[in-house]
Amino acid sequence: MSTIEDRLAQLGIILPAESAPAANYANFVLAGSLLFISGKGPAGDSRGKLGADYTTEEGYQFARAAGIEVLAVVKAAAGSLDNVKRVVKAQGFINSSPSFAEHHLVLNGFSDLMAEVFGEKGLHARSVFGANSLRNQLPVIIDSIFEIHSAD
Amino acid sequence: MSTIEDRLAQLGIILPAESAPAANYANFVLAGSLLFISGKGPAGDSRGKLGADYTTEEGYQFARAAGIEVLAVVKAAAGSLDNVKRVVKAQGFINSSPSFAEHHLVLNGFSDLMAEVFGEKGLHARSVFGANSLRNQLPVIIDSIFEIHSAD
Amino acid sequence: MSTIEDRLAQLGIILPAESAPAANYANFVLAGSLLFISGKGPAGDSRGKLGADYTTEEGYQFARAAGIEVLAVVKAAAGSLDNVKRVVKAQGFINSSPSFAEHHLVLNGFSDLMAEVFGEKGLHARSVFGANSLRNQLPVIIDSIFEIHSAD
Repeated sequence: MSTIEDRLAQLGIILPAESAPAANYANFVLAGSLLFISGKGPAGDSRGKLGADYTTEEGYQFARAAGIEVLAVVKAAAGSLDNVKRVVKAQGFINSSPSFAEHHLVLNGFSDLMAEVFGEKGLHARSVFGANSLRNQLPVIIDSIFEIHSAD
Repeated sequence: MSTIEDRLAQLGIILPAESAPAANYANFVLAGSLLFISGKGPAGDSRGKLGADYTTEEGYQFARAAGIEVLAVVKAAAGSLDNVKRVVKAQGFINSSPSFAEHHLVLNGFSDLMAEVFGEKGLHARSVFGANSLRNQLPVIIDSIFEIHSAD
Repeated sequence: MSTIEDRLAQLGIILPAESAPAANYANFVLAGSLLFISGKGPAGDSRGKLGADYTTEEGYQFARAAGIEVLAVVKAAAGSLDNVKRVVKAQGFINSSPSFAEHHLVLNGFSDLMAEVFGEKGLHARSVFGANSLRNQLPVIIDSIFEIHSAD
């Protein structure tokens, strides 16, 4: 019985297929029990800046959507989300105007998702900042580290 | 005898109480011997950008003040600062104007504090960049990783 | 026989001497098998922003040049590049205009170099963002983590 997968279903979340890296990098690297995940933005074609093109609430939804892309990679890396021991760290890159000040409220979209999916194990260290611009003008990118149960 | 706590007292530094996370995250996560600390800014109500609202020397003091907030979390996480094996990594997020160029001199405020408190163990890998904006327009945020002596 | 050093020679790459830290930090910290490298920019005196002063192709070359500086530190830390088990993680800080959108193509300069030098072991997790400004107005800085073979 997959507890975490059941919880995802209860939340109505269907994980997408892991997207293939488009260059000489990897979606994830496992070093010991630490799983380093490449930066992920939300699916879809939303492009622009918080504080100019999008509201904080829209940013929250982008961070949540980016979290779903992150989980798809974690599942591919760990075999099952039940193998996650802890969400360790998240950095939120927020494409923003110079006067934007609610980065933390945007990142909550990711943090709340992790708490919903993993409970106490979902509570992570985090930091967030305003980026001047992001690749393809994505509104949000999440960079993250997970801890995985060792095989033995 | 707490060597590091004694040194803090000699430096005239009184660590504040660890602030409580205001959302679904943690001030720290310990994964193996690596302690990941959430991004911390200076206490107080200073708000604005380096290169516009503040001088590099003021930024240095902000980075030092952020370091004191980081140490408060490390102490809460590790029980005592004497359990710190090494300051591993720091990233400095500097809220700055597009033409600011002295980010490294700002981050020295954090780096010098770590050297004063921990000596050789305080020398850390680091990087720094100019953020377009930061949460609540904080002038500086420090993201950090420490190594802790294992219990056995 | 040093496989990686031979490959560097084939690529015509001569590693510079590791530059000395100019303040209270370290070029690298080894914690367990994880090697944390301080942020490195390209050698030379290029200063400015992608999307304003430099083209994406020039940025690609800056990221590659920053990678060579990173490798110089890794060699100093690990004794030989043959002791690298995996390139774990890279973050690219791109000094850029607000409308720049090709950060990933710039970071490819670093990623391609790692693949050329290390093959499969060079594939790393990564993320990239636009910085409002960088120290000394460097165009690109690379922050990185490597995994090193343990001594025993």
